[in-house]
Amino acid sequence: MQPPRDLRGLWLLLLSLFLLLFEVARAGRPVVSCPAACLCASNILSCSKQQLPNVPHSLPSYTALLDLSHNNLSRLRAEWTPTRLTHLHSLLLSHNHLNFISSEAFSPVPNLRYLDLSSNQLRTLDEFLFSELQVLEVLLLYNNHIMAVDRCAFDDMAQLQKLYLSQNQISRFPLELVKEGAKLPKLTLLDLSSNKLKNLPLPDLQKLPAWIKNGLYLHNNPLHCDCELYQLFSHWQYRQLSSVMDFQEDLYCMSAKKLHNVFNLSFLNCSEYKERAWEAHLGDSLTIKCDTKQQGMTKVWVTPSNERVLDEVANSTVTVSKDGSLHFHRVQIEHGGVYTCYAMGEAFNETLSVELKVYNFTLHGHHDTLNTAYTTLVGCILSVVLVLIYLYLTPCRCWCRGVEKPSSHQADSLSSSMLSTTPNHDPMAGGDKDDGFDRRVAFLEPAGPAQGQNGKLKPGNTLPVPEATGKGQRRMSDPESVSSVFSDTPIVV
Amino acid sequence: MQPPRDLRGLWLLLLSLFLLLFEVARAGRPVVSCPAACLCASNILSCSKQQLPNVPHSLPSYTALLDLSHNNLSRLRAEWTPTRLTHLHSLLLSHNHLNFISSEAFSPVPNLRYLDLSSNQLRTLDEFLFSELQVLEVLLLYNNHIMAVDRCAFDDMAQLQKLYLSQNQISRFPLELVKEGAKLPKLTLLDLSSNKLKNLPLPDLQKLPAWIKNGLYLHNNPLHCDCELYQLFSHWQYRQLSSVMDFQEDLYCMSAKKLHNVFNLSFLNCSEYKERAWEAHLGDSLTIKCDTKQQGMTKVWVTPSNERVLDEVANSTVTVSKDGSLHFHRVQIEHGGVYTCYAMGEAFNETLSVELKVYNFTLHGHHDTLNTAYTTLVGCILSVVLVLIYLYLTPCRCWCRGVEKPSSHQADSLSSSMLSTTPNHDPMAGGDKDDGFDRRVAFLEPAGPAQGQNGKLKPGNTLPVPEATGKGQRRMSDPESVSSVFSDTPIVV
Repeated sequence: MQPPRDLRGLWLLLLSLFLLLFEVARAGRPVVSCPAACLCASNILSCSKQQLPNVPHSLPSYTALLDLSHNNLSRLRAEWTPTRLTHLHSLLLSHNHLNFISSEAFSPVPNLRYLDLSSNQLRTLDEFLFSELQVLEVLLLYNNHIMAVDRCAFDDMAQLQKLYLSQNQISRFPLELVKEGAKLPKLTLLDLSSNKLKNLPLPDLQKLPAWIKNGLYLHNNPLHCDCELYQLFSHWQYRQLSSVMDFQEDLYCMSAKKLHNVFNLSFLNCSEYKERAWEAHLGDSLTIKCDTKQQGMTKVWVTPSNERVLDEVANSTVTVSKDGSLHFHRVQIEHGGVYTCYAMGEAFNETLSVELKVYNFTLHGHHDTLNTAYTTLVGCILSVVLVLIYLYLTPCRCWCRGVEKPSSHQADSLSSSMLSTTPNHDPMAGGDKDDGFDRRVAFLEPAGPAQGQNGKLKPGNTLPVPEATGKGQRRMSDPESVSSVFSDTPIVV
Repeated sequence: MQPPRDLRGLWLLLLSLFLLLFEVARAGRPVVSCPAACLCASNILSCSKQQLPNVPHSLPSYTALLDLSHNNLSRLRAEWTPTRLTHLHSLLLSHNHLNFISSEAFSPVPNLRYLDLSSNQLRTLDEFLFSELQVLEVLLLYNNHIMAVDRCAFDDMAQLQKLYLSQNQISRFPLELVKEGAKLPKLTLLDLSSNKLKNLPLPDLQKLPAWIKNGLYLHNNPLHCDCELYQLFSHWQYRQLSSVMDFQEDLYCMSAKKLHNVFNLSFLNCSEYKERAWEAHLGDSLTIKCDTKQQGMTKVWVTPSNERVLDEVANSTVTVSKDGSLHFHRVQIEHGGVYTCYAMGEAFNETLSVELKVYNFTLHGHHDTLNTAYTTLVGCILSVVLVLIYLYLTPCRCWCRGVEKPSSHQADSLSSSMLSTTPNHDPMAGGDKDDGFDRRVAFLEPAGPAQGQNGKLKPGNTLPVPEATGKGQRRMSDPESVSSVFSDTPIVV
């Protein structure tokens, strides 16, 4: 009976090996089946409202849109999908109970363009959470419990255009997101409405281009009431920016624990908002931007005399630069008036008027005239003139040359150190201290064998310093030695 | 007591008038409030899963995305929104009970780009239903009860890129949607999977460019099994098209009421699919398309000797045209071999190889030589020659002219009608029926006073038709009357 049993065991082993190989082969093939809880239409997987506690396992790799909204998901772990979903462009996770998203959760979906995480229970946005999503265009995070936005949460999202953070608990305005040339260069919509913002960086917001302010929603926040805030939103209202125009009645601010509409702050006695004119002086160079509500519009400028300003043209004092700005090379008095920018866009056209006031005088004290070259040159000339005055127009002492009058060391030290680079005016230093003369200009008279022809100093020869009488002597060099006045090398006297 | 009552009535009247005016003034302002059933995040209105039987009234005009999914909507009337929603780009109506959509329902949303009508109860798509949606890019109609797609349902949708019609009851393949240069020039995805398609227009499908076939999903349909179908999908498989590669196991066909996988039709003994080479003869002109899976790719062709084919260059027999096709101006024997097209796209790159066989002889009898001009000219010349032969080289009868032999009417009729445009060969017609001669060529002999000089017919003079003897007479016109041979105007004999 033993041999048959052995054979059966062998058969069973072979069979199980075969089944194992079959399974391995199956696993290697692309997963093509539609998950049980989902409705599949080619590359769309709709698994919404299925009370799913987890993301269905083994999603097809060709999935382009995955709808998991209205389920019971609470955590999005790093390994939520074992397959890399490189074709996925839209991931809908709204109306779940998500309170945790792994920082690696979006690694398997690098080509996501639309991510809906709205109506969940997220509390924080950790740094680099979305950094893998480098082509994401729209991110919906409204109706969560987000209290803090990490300054690096949206790093490396160069394509992000719309970010909805409405209906959260955010109390700090994330200025780093909107600053021009900042982290999100393409962001045209940032919804921060219905949060807990109290203070806004008003001067920074004022500086933003209109195409960012147009999509910067700040209504329904307990902002601090003041005239600056009123002036900011009045300007936005004047510019007909959507963020203010669509929500005028919801733009609140708080004063004395009461909510007030921003445009109804009579108790603050703020001055009425008035668009200011551009001001310039004769000869100034000036650039006026055509600050449109949309990016990439075609811009045409028209002068006060209804003539079109042409693009870069030689010999023209007013031109339009490549980015559509109006550029005055040298402002003239006749440049004053109202300039109009006509901007044509895909969705709408826009007309902007800008007034330019030119003052009939030039503005002196330019930074440019005080440059280094001028000051150095003037300094040099002044020094040479002073030296020449000292040499030839020295008062009193020259005329008293014949009388051998012992001059005090103090006067000598003063005159010799006049142009020395190191100050050495200590009258107590005395002649016994050689160091005191090291950087002085030396004026030597032709006297004694130590001096060469024409009174030039003979290098190698050491000049005997007069111990007692030398103190009172007037020393003078020949005119050639004047060249050493500005030299730093010490002349040994 | 009466005067106070009157006063009270007056006051009430004034108050109600005031309230009415106030309401009118309110109605004139833009509606900015968020509907009670919705969650509003700036321009997004999320009203999903609220058991709404109707679309909320008075939607804000700035709405860009409106989510009404998972509700109880059953009809979408023309007046579903009193406000025109020109900013709306996405409308989500999936998971409702929609069974009727007014043909004017989409008039208030002309800028819609994404429309989700999936998982509803739609049965038909009426003509011009979506014609207002001229910028729509994605239309989701999967999981409905659609039985018929009107040929004009998707007219004027020049921007439509993706159309999902999966999981419906469609039994006719809507070829008009995919034919190149047809109604939907930008359509790259047409999902017809899980429908009731039995027959496909196979030759038309074969001709479609790869970028359409790549997104033409036809799996899960009870297609009729045959070798042509197998060849079609085998070619798509060879080209690695997504529509086949992602759903190989779901591509079924039906034979004898049984479902078979399209790639497993051994019972039909179909010949194995083999990519065919292009064939050309010496001197032929030939264009080979680089049939890529994606539109707008940059294409580079490389010859069998690994040299890059340059764009339009003078004196070159092989060039690459603007659309990336390889063009042979005059095929030569050395042009034979395998050409490779390298296509670079945004999402992926592609390499295509094409074999060209050149036969060592020229192909005569081209279609081009058989054109209308040639055949007409040849016909004319032949007719003139025949007429001249008939006039001057008529056999026997000319030589027998002297003998007055009465010829039968039958022979006369035959010869005269030889070049007539209307056939009139009825031998039973007889000479007593004048109509029979109306369109015949008449040959009159100069005989009798009724005829003018040179044998020309005198208009106004009626020619006496010989009653008995005329039958046997041979009639002949002068040479000038030959010009009337091809005229349709009747000559009265």
